[in-house]
Amino acid sequence: MSHRVVIVGGGFGGLRATQALRHAPVEVTLVDKRNFHLFQPLLYQVATGGLSPANIAAPLRGVLKKQKNARVLLAEAVDIDVPARRLILSDGQIEYDTLVIATGAQHHYLGHDDWEAFAPALKTIEDATEIRRRILLAFEMAERESHPKQVKACLTFVIVGAGPTGVELAGALSEIARDTLRHDFRQIDPTQARILLVEGAERVLPTYPPELSEKARASLIRLGVTVWTGATVESVGPDYVAVRVGGRLEKILARTVLWAAGVQASPLGRALARAAGAKLDRAGRVIVEPDLTVPGHPEIFAIGDLCHFRHQTGQPLPGVAPVAIQQGQYVAEVIQARLQGKTPLPFRYHDKGNLATIGRAAAVADLPHCKFSGFPAWLLWLFIHLLNIVEYQNRLLVAIQWAWNYFTFNRAARLITGKTPLPLDVGHASPEEDASPALAGECRSPKKN
Amino acid sequence: MSHRVVIVGGGFGGLRATQALRHAPVEVTLVDKRNFHLFQPLLYQVATGGLSPANIAAPLRGVLKKQKNARVLLAEAVDIDVPARRLILSDGQIEYDTLVIATGAQHHYLGHDDWEAFAPALKTIEDATEIRRRILLAFEMAERESHPKQVKACLTFVIVGAGPTGVELAGALSEIARDTLRHDFRQIDPTQARILLVEGAERVLPTYPPELSEKARASLIRLGVTVWTGATVESVGPDYVAVRVGGRLEKILARTVLWAAGVQASPLGRALARAAGAKLDRAGRVIVEPDLTVPGHPEIFAIGDLCHFRHQTGQPLPGVAPVAIQQGQYVAEVIQARLQGKTPLPFRYHDKGNLATIGRAAAVADLPHCKFSGFPAWLLWLFIHLLNIVEYQNRLLVAIQWAWNYFTFNRAARLITGKTPLPLDVGHASPEEDASPALAGECRSPKKN
Repeated sequence: MSHRVVIVGGGFGGLRATQALRHAPVEVTLVDKRNFHLFQPLLYQVATGGLSPANIAAPLRGVLKKQKNARVLLAEAVDIDVPARRLILSDGQIEYDTLVIATGAQHHYLGHDDWEAFAPALKTIEDATEIRRRILLAFEMAERESHPKQVKACLTFVIVGAGPTGVELAGALSEIARDTLRHDFRQIDPTQARILLVEGAERVLPTYPPELSEKARASLIRLGVTVWTGATVESVGPDYVAVRVGGRLEKILARTVLWAAGVQASPLGRALARAAGAKLDRAGRVIVEPDLTVPGHPEIFAIGDLCHFRHQTGQPLPGVAPVAIQQGQYVAEVIQARLQGKTPLPFRYHDKGNLATIGRAAAVADLPHCKFSGFPAWLLWLFIHLLNIVEYQNRLLVAIQWAWNYFTFNRAARLITGKTPLPLDVGHASPEEDASPALAGECRSPKKN
Repeated sequence: MSHRVVIVGGGFGGLRATQALRHAPVEVTLVDKRNFHLFQPLLYQVATGGLSPANIAAPLRGVLKKQKNARVLLAEAVDIDVPARRLILSDGQIEYDTLVIATGAQHHYLGHDDWEAFAPALKTIEDATEIRRRILLAFEMAERESHPKQVKACLTFVIVGAGPTGVELAGALSEIARDTLRHDFRQIDPTQARILLVEGAERVLPTYPPELSEKARASLIRLGVTVWTGATVESVGPDYVAVRVGGRLEKILARTVLWAAGVQASPLGRALARAAGAKLDRAGRVIVEPDLTVPGHPEIFAIGDLCHFRHQTGQPLPGVAPVAIQQGQYVAEVIQARLQGKTPLPFRYHDKGNLATIGRAAAVADLPHCKFSGFPAWLLWLFIHLLNIVEYQNRLLVAIQWAWNYFTFNRAARLITGKTPLPLDVGHASPEEDASPALAGECRSPKKN
């Protein structure tokens, strides 16, 4: 019987590991609870109505249909029976000779899970369509609302966290308000929307070089985004967010709060800690050996956002797609080297740089030998992202939608779907009368303190 | 103050009426509970993974943003205060001088509302993504299942109703099983899927000429679809459908049953009956005067699928897009004629023919002066549908996806989204042990009679 490799998670790391094993004398099982690979770096464009979910998703079975040594299992991994070498699924189990855990990270509310209802985060397709619904409904509520204070709350958007996702969301929101929806309403002026980006660190894009943070901040301000750095969220409610900034506590009335701060490794890391004695860092990531294995368990690898690897620089590698892809490739090579009786070299990350976009023709590039921003960085961003989308058809569809958006400012995918959004329930209940539970989808009178 | 026209429903009829009033000295309010116009004839392609929801939806505000005499109200109309000339919304009210009701139809289970949970119908974007989820999960469940009888139930798809939607769904399902998913699985052979189309009338496409019904049936059979005509559904459960055909009662074990039979006019018809004394036909449609007004109420029009108009042929006009579009256009002309003191002619429907597609290169065309089928009818179908999609960008995106599908057999939008599909719960519980409520998303042992 050939060597059984079980890979958990069909993101960048797990999918690359699977594909890199295509000529190896192994049986690969790729386990994922979703039936598609998601191109997460463009998820914010689904949340802001620029792309459709399917444009950034590639069905895993379709991607792997020609790889005869691979099969896809739609299942949720919940635990690991390390001594018996079995992955425990929510509805079964599967034996492995080598296990690769690539289940990534999920959003994290820093101990305030109750904030999630009011400030959704962006990790899944469902998150993206829910955020899209909230953004579009906020403008609809503003159009129906008569009280100026409540109109303002409907047209205030707060994004918590100014990493790449937060910066991209803020830039896209500004473009929606200033360009896409400019002529869509009759009672309100969408260009009056206030977009506030709140970051705990002293600068936006804190993992980038300071001069690029400064460029990004300037681009955001040019787009009309208000940027607060050194600002921490103290509480979030259905129609407000309280932020401590410069020693003061500011309460901002806002119907729409989006969470782009804080991620935590997937729960399978904790399963590895229990079952294999793995050590986790504070973010729940598995601290791995130089060959990405769990200490004491050369048959178990942890890669991607779930993995804490710091043998190269002393700092853990960032949770970005290139790290996951290179680690997936490396693990496949280690598995093949071992089968040939060879000893592989330790993993080395080749940092090709970082890119973040802010909006139309605005981006920053932090490459090994140069740093630049503006239109050239934006073109590079477009090019790199198009190239990395998994399916050819989706590359074409994304390119067309970007071109259309660039020339017409239109965002065609601005649908309000999902939970019935109506009634909007605007301006009927006074704060005193209304004792119903706070629903984030409604536009209600701001609560008095 | 200018004449206030309130139009309820942004489908084909309501949107056309709004647009045809763009130069009229009126104030138009278009009320819809959704923020987009839906190109319903292509909804089955969303349900079968060929297109994304946004490709067939056009945001109403975007479509009307340049029409200065029109505004869009995202609201649900629930009743009409006829004496006061007010439309009652679920969260407010709005006064009108002329009211146009164009709220269409919804699916209808012929008195068996309990079937809806097991046999979803296709009217909304949410219906389409739910049907897509069920179709794709059925193949996933079959791949996980070990009991041959249950594999067969997972791979059996029953479509109830062989009007255009049922025929299109059956054809697309056959292509998914035979082409798109052909190489996607390792345990099952998707080409072994059984697709059964059940129709109560004696032929498929019963509103088309008999010779085209025969062509359509032949095309379906060529695609591997089993066609039962003169067959009526007696009951539907979580994993079966019971059909009376040729005097026998057949119980078919099937995990996926789709409902494409029976529509009923929107509830606003009943509101018109209560408030304005309108007469309704058996399908709940409002029986209108020759000028599409409600008898006794020249200020209230009913158009589209909600309207029963038979002054031309003695038979009510069919519930198709061209009827609704022509009626929307006519109503706009009547409103303008009245403002100029003229008396308009009665409505006349210009029947340009009917088209239905069965699958790749297969369609039937019933035009006034000719009837044909096969590849030419299919090309005409493609052309007409592309031309009628509201936004240019969507025309391009749909054309590209059709071309891609034609040459590669791929359907890129085959995502399982929405309610968490897992655990699949396959083959664990025996029928005797399992007392949990029957969930349509699970693959469970067929119940014993």
